[in-house]
Amino acid sequence: MAVNLPYPVAAELLPVAGIELGYAEAGVRKANRKDLLVMKLAPSATVAGVFTTNRFCAAPVQVCKAHLEGLHISASPIRALVVNTGNANAGTGEAGLADANATCAALAELLDCEAAQILPFSTGVILEPLPVERVKGGLPQAIANLKADNWYHAAETIMTTDTQPKAASRTVQINGQTVTLTGISKGAGMIKPNMATMLGFVATDAKVSQRVLEHLVKVAADQSFNCITIDGDTSTNDSFILMATGVAAAEVTDIDTPEFAVLSQAVIGISQELAQKIIRDGEGATKFITVTVEEGTSVEECRKIAYSIGHSPLVKTAFFASDPNLGRILCAIGYAGIDDLDVSKLNLYLDDVLVAKHGGRNPEYREEDGQRVMQQSEITVRVKLGRGSAAATIWTCDLSHDYVSINADYRS
Amino acid sequence: MAVNLPYPVAAELLPVAGIELGYAEAGVRKANRKDLLVMKLAPSATVAGVFTTNRFCAAPVQVCKAHLEGLHISASPIRALVVNTGNANAGTGEAGLADANATCAALAELLDCEAAQILPFSTGVILEPLPVERVKGGLPQAIANLKADNWYHAAETIMTTDTQPKAASRTVQINGQTVTLTGISKGAGMIKPNMATMLGFVATDAKVSQRVLEHLVKVAADQSFNCITIDGDTSTNDSFILMATGVAAAEVTDIDTPEFAVLSQAVIGISQELAQKIIRDGEGATKFITVTVEEGTSVEECRKIAYSIGHSPLVKTAFFASDPNLGRILCAIGYAGIDDLDVSKLNLYLDDVLVAKHGGRNPEYREEDGQRVMQQSEITVRVKLGRGSAAATIWTCDLSHDYVSINADYRS
Repeated sequence: MAVNLPYPVAAELLPVAGIELGYAEAGVRKANRKDLLVMKLAPSATVAGVFTTNRFCAAPVQVCKAHLEGLHISASPIRALVVNTGNANAGTGEAGLADANATCAALAELLDCEAAQILPFSTGVILEPLPVERVKGGLPQAIANLKADNWYHAAETIMTTDTQPKAASRTVQINGQTVTLTGISKGAGMIKPNMATMLGFVATDAKVSQRVLEHLVKVAADQSFNCITIDGDTSTNDSFILMATGVAAAEVTDIDTPEFAVLSQAVIGISQELAQKIIRDGEGATKFITVTVEEGTSVEECRKIAYSIGHSPLVKTAFFASDPNLGRILCAIGYAGIDDLDVSKLNLYLDDVLVAKHGGRNPEYREEDGQRVMQQSEITVRVKLGRGSAAATIWTCDLSHDYVSINADYRS
Repeated sequence: MAVNLPYPVAAELLPVAGIELGYAEAGVRKANRKDLLVMKLAPSATVAGVFTTNRFCAAPVQVCKAHLEGLHISASPIRALVVNTGNANAGTGEAGLADANATCAALAELLDCEAAQILPFSTGVILEPLPVERVKGGLPQAIANLKADNWYHAAETIMTTDTQPKAASRTVQINGQTVTLTGISKGAGMIKPNMATMLGFVATDAKVSQRVLEHLVKVAADQSFNCITIDGDTSTNDSFILMATGVAAAEVTDIDTPEFAVLSQAVIGISQELAQKIIRDGEGATKFITVTVEEGTSVEECRKIAYSIGHSPLVKTAFFASDPNLGRILCAIGYAGIDDLDVSKLNLYLDDVLVAKHGGRNPEYREEDGQRVMQQSEITVRVKLGRGSAAATIWTCDLSHDYVSINADYRS
């Protein structure tokens, strides 16, 4: 089902010195599937993250935020991350917080550190109690198989309705030193991150100060996980974590340096790749759609229009049908909430085809040109607003029968 | 497919003195179907309307607005309305405006009045030129069969993807005089009116001043057509029109009168009935969902949360599946954009079942209770925010396979 998304090849996923990954079948929701992941970090590692803005943010998200805040007042670094699928531990109140803390305490004991040095993550069904004993029970198995080259298994472990594991690797040179980056992501529905995707983890072996890493994680999220939408549902558990193990020789100490420029470009690149993989594996997706809005007065207004197009069920079903019913795109632009939009200055392109000119149908537009583009599996919608120089791009997918099937059947 | 929506019975739709309706098969898009409606008003009639806020508002909407504005500077009343289906005349630029004006001019000539005394409406495909000659060609046929008891045919004529005609009648007593109200509506997709539904027309024989009617149409829209959503797409053509023919003896001259209270209650009632019929016939709908948000600090914040629930594809597919996956509702509340929402004060009910208490799962909630309610064809979601005394209600439907089928196939 996924759109132009090759399976990752385990051998091509590069280990990152200073991080080991272990998995277990803990039976959180279903038996005989990997559902628990531990990522263990070198003591030299720095960690930063961005999280969902959903007011019902899950218990593990609250605990993660508190533990990352704690880095500012404590000298104890984050030593490990623990992720369970099958249960989101969201909408679970005080009991959910206790369960997330208990998970941290159990892993801390096994790794001989403090609970505050653990970051917990959960993804799955909302409003059901976390079976915390099963999570805790799976930890020894996960620790027993900790390995640096377990990235493929890690990507598999965090899948829920994903049809494929999502992972990516790359290297860059910083001051003549090779720096490695490897990341994984998951999420295929409930995706309109307002901070990050359901779950995204990127690790590098570079040495990066806490302050720089906190800046970089926000920059990267805003240009990757914050630019995708499948169904407009901002999840309770969205988390994007950037880890720098500090084991390699390359070091980034400040934002205004060439080293930062190289590293940030690499982090943004791998984050975009991981974010786009989520869209390519969007629930029921058959098309990968890039929506670019140009010539706006602000990035914010461009994003508003891009998301209005990307969320419209009518636009998304037209893409699914390969039907150039492109008036639906104009309609979505029109209700995006830009009150002073002068539609007579607006041009709409589908790939290279000029569909609407000065707000009306381009007299030279021919249905067969639109039809040709709509039949592709990758399509770019380009809107030129003719009122400024700002621009924004988002990535989305179509709305198909399978989206309804997957979400109508998810729990059964 | 429609949810508890009985077919209107032609004999139960009451003629409204002072308005006649005529229809034609003009072949606007397809042959052999009624697609052109003329409503002719007595010279004593007052008319007021509310329209879409979409920036790509259709040419006929622009002409309607101009002609209704003209009432403030001219003594010439609106004499007729003309509606075509099959083509929305939206995204059609200057040519579309010329076509809408040409339609008015043609009907005005046949009725011996000014073009400014005609209100034009279109609904159908966007971004395609209106076949204006066919519309004009159908007018004589429509005028030839003008009759006071054609409401059922009128409701049929304005259908597009609707599976049933939608109409309602009622009478009220004002100062001992019987006042009749009859209305029709259409629209089954692209429905998240920000002013009114795709098309809604309500007529009464009461005598109502222009000023009072303009107030009443807004009040009624805000409590009816502005409280429904199917897919969150605010159309380019939404129009809701209230007509008072002034032929009956009953008169409403001011807002602070008992006469206004009686009339407005009747107008709001019939408008809600017509709006709810649109939801009951929503594209692919299998469930009719009422979402009520109470104990908010403002109506606006209650509406924001209600629409967040009503638009969530995940919530809507759960309703389709009769799956009490109710965490999805909490999730939608959480991302509604109420930054200071304290979820620990929030309770969530499904009909009479308390699902979430103080922001977490109600310990006494049993899955089978949620399951029982989810299997019903009519369900009320009630959210108590615990932070104020404002409330709001919207009506929506589920998201089914048929929604995708209908919108993937609409033009073919």
